[in-house]
Amino acid sequence: MKAVIKAVPGGTVTSPEGFFAGAVSAGINERAAGKLDLAVLFSETPCVAAGVFTTSKLKSAPVQLTRQRLEGGQAGAVVVNSGCANAFTGEHGLVDAAEVASLVAEGIGIDPEDVLVASTGVIGVPLPMKKIRASVEDIIMSRDGGHDLAKAMMTTDTIPKEAAVSVKIGDSGYTIGGAAKGSGMIHPDMATLLCFLTTDAAVERHFLEGALEEAVDLSFNMISVDGDTSPSDTALLLANGMAGGEPITAKSEQAGAFRRALEQVCVYLARLIAADGEGATRLIEVTVNGAADLSQARKAARAVVSSALVKAAIHGADPNWGRVVAAVGRSGADMDEYKIDLFIGETQVIKAGRALNAGKRAVNELLKGKEVNLRVNLNLGEGSATAWGCDLSEEYVAINSDYMT
Amino acid sequence: MKAVIKAVPGGTVTSPEGFFAGAVSAGINERAAGKLDLAVLFSETPCVAAGVFTTSKLKSAPVQLTRQRLEGGQAGAVVVNSGCANAFTGEHGLVDAAEVASLVAEGIGIDPEDVLVASTGVIGVPLPMKKIRASVEDIIMSRDGGHDLAKAMMTTDTIPKEAAVSVKIGDSGYTIGGAAKGSGMIHPDMATLLCFLTTDAAVERHFLEGALEEAVDLSFNMISVDGDTSPSDTALLLANGMAGGEPITAKSEQAGAFRRALEQVCVYLARLIAADGEGATRLIEVTVNGAADLSQARKAARAVVSSALVKAAIHGADPNWGRVVAAVGRSGADMDEYKIDLFIGETQVIKAGRALNAGKRAVNELLKGKEVNLRVNLNLGEGSATAWGCDLSEEYVAINSDYMT
Repeated sequence: MKAVIKAVPGGTVTSPEGFFAGAVSAGINERAAGKLDLAVLFSETPCVAAGVFTTSKLKSAPVQLTRQRLEGGQAGAVVVNSGCANAFTGEHGLVDAAEVASLVAEGIGIDPEDVLVASTGVIGVPLPMKKIRASVEDIIMSRDGGHDLAKAMMTTDTIPKEAAVSVKIGDSGYTIGGAAKGSGMIHPDMATLLCFLTTDAAVERHFLEGALEEAVDLSFNMISVDGDTSPSDTALLLANGMAGGEPITAKSEQAGAFRRALEQVCVYLARLIAADGEGATRLIEVTVNGAADLSQARKAARAVVSSALVKAAIHGADPNWGRVVAAVGRSGADMDEYKIDLFIGETQVIKAGRALNAGKRAVNELLKGKEVNLRVNLNLGEGSATAWGCDLSEEYVAINSDYMT
Repeated sequence: MKAVIKAVPGGTVTSPEGFFAGAVSAGINERAAGKLDLAVLFSETPCVAAGVFTTSKLKSAPVQLTRQRLEGGQAGAVVVNSGCANAFTGEHGLVDAAEVASLVAEGIGIDPEDVLVASTGVIGVPLPMKKIRASVEDIIMSRDGGHDLAKAMMTTDTIPKEAAVSVKIGDSGYTIGGAAKGSGMIHPDMATLLCFLTTDAAVERHFLEGALEEAVDLSFNMISVDGDTSPSDTALLLANGMAGGEPITAKSEQAGAFRRALEQVCVYLARLIAADGEGATRLIEVTVNGAADLSQARKAARAVVSSALVKAAIHGADPNWGRVVAAVGRSGADMDEYKIDLFIGETQVIKAGRALNAGKRAVNELLKGKEVNLRVNLNLGEGSATAWGCDLSEEYVAINSDYMT
């Protein structure tokens, strides 16, 4: 049975059946008056749920609470705010996060234990609970509220990030949707950023957890904006089963299509995050082929997209490909100088370790596009991986030297 | 017997007895016409020698040649050029590096095997051998030529980096000198950068190697400018014994003073490199105390100086100390949120995980200095380490988006 995966035009986290969302401006960040900053996502039926979280030893209060609540493998709603990360806020932060969940649970009429929490923004500042208490009841939930939720998650993001795909298998089918935020503090070490994924497919819990981890590894764990990693990073996946059918398990015929569709949504969102990195003007896509194994391919691809020197060179459309090779060299991946090939777009600039006479001007033109593709072949083995990042601009520095003041 | 270690005013790599240096402008980098770019350092008597090199799997031709020549543990001269790294230049690069060494050996009248080579500059471009052949013979060697050598090593460095200390033990004594270059591609993964150290002390070979590794670990391996690591990084230490006396060994009474003096020169040079990072306007010194062990203290200190977000915040004198805590959190070092203390200068801003009311304005003032000191106490154990870095400015991006074009 063949599955057909299609992008849903204008799709978002509420595209799957039974999901509702809404957002308000609670005034959490005084510097962004009027911006949507508090949002709720909920499913009209209980969901099987999975999460992937920051690997940082400093975990925000929402991350601590949500991890704990996911131990049961189920959830009914998610509440998210921007403007304050509620990280490094001590026991009081945990109390605040739990209260926010309770306020939402009361509004929707579900068990507080089924409400997950996520926050993003400044670290070390308590949530302005008065403002949140006053605003939660103003949230109006609707089937197309996903767009507002995507906007409410934004901090220095310049565009909301959302997507959905539909999967058709014969007469039946289901939808997977998602909304994400990123921008700064994005580095491939972990779940990274905030991302909420939904599906109306019926999915067995352990398969759901495995599929989420795998999709995050191929997407959010392969992007880098600035090498920093936040205490708040959270990716959640809620499956409410409203599309009907038997729950998909690792042994189902449909397991492969579900994995593939989920990966597609996550990669799409990850690319949006990389392209919208703070101050970014170009998306950089780096594919490494021919590495000794998968883990070395991943290391090498991430080293290139994480290199400040590569990022700055691409910002200036400077054909300084020596920096790409240097990044691969320091990545820890095995390499043989005399075997490496490098392509910029379709133009080969290095063959078997020798610089070809590709013409600086032609390469310079390729580097001026909105999307720059680098392809490295180490010609050692079968390992392949793709990573995404963005150029490093003066604007990144300007944004981050004046975040609080 | 007590040793007295004193800075030598105006000291440089030729301050120790018997060392000579000289430099010329060979025109290696066409964009820096007239700049000194080719230099030689030599000792009138043969030296015991040690080196520490890049950990990158891509090693420049000079690194490959010099490592091999140091297997014998001796050397007589070093030749260095800026403007071209002679890295990723294949077998031809090795031939070129060996020829440069031979030209110098011939001029001085020593065995070519005793000449070490180091290069810095653009990767992937061959050395302009015609220019080098024509220029080597113009180099005039003198006892105060260390200053010119320090200048000839510079690429995007804005100041030459040199230092010397004298060590007095009763009636006898010796001097240790050094010259270094850094600026971009500086990251604590390795020997890092180019650094030449000299001493007229008599030192036994294995002790010399161990002392160099230890000093590099406490200095050049604790600085970060941009997280990148170069294929060219080299630190060399030459000891010619002209101060007389029995060679210092690990068991000598004088071993501790030698280690301490060498560390002092290296830390001084490392701080100069960090402060002169590309586009830097401030030196950042981060000390981590109370880590579970030394290796965790090193990890945590390096994570903070390497954080693009911390660096950008300090550039803007933004009191966003949450980013410091987040960097410690993702470093992998054990931490307990409720035990951490943070000082900016002498002002405590976090006590036992709680933000103190330190006053944004006061902290803002502290962050405006030429040198910003951050002190983290994890209050878990006895591990301490110090790392150095610089702020991230718009200028860093400007320099690195236009290096080749």
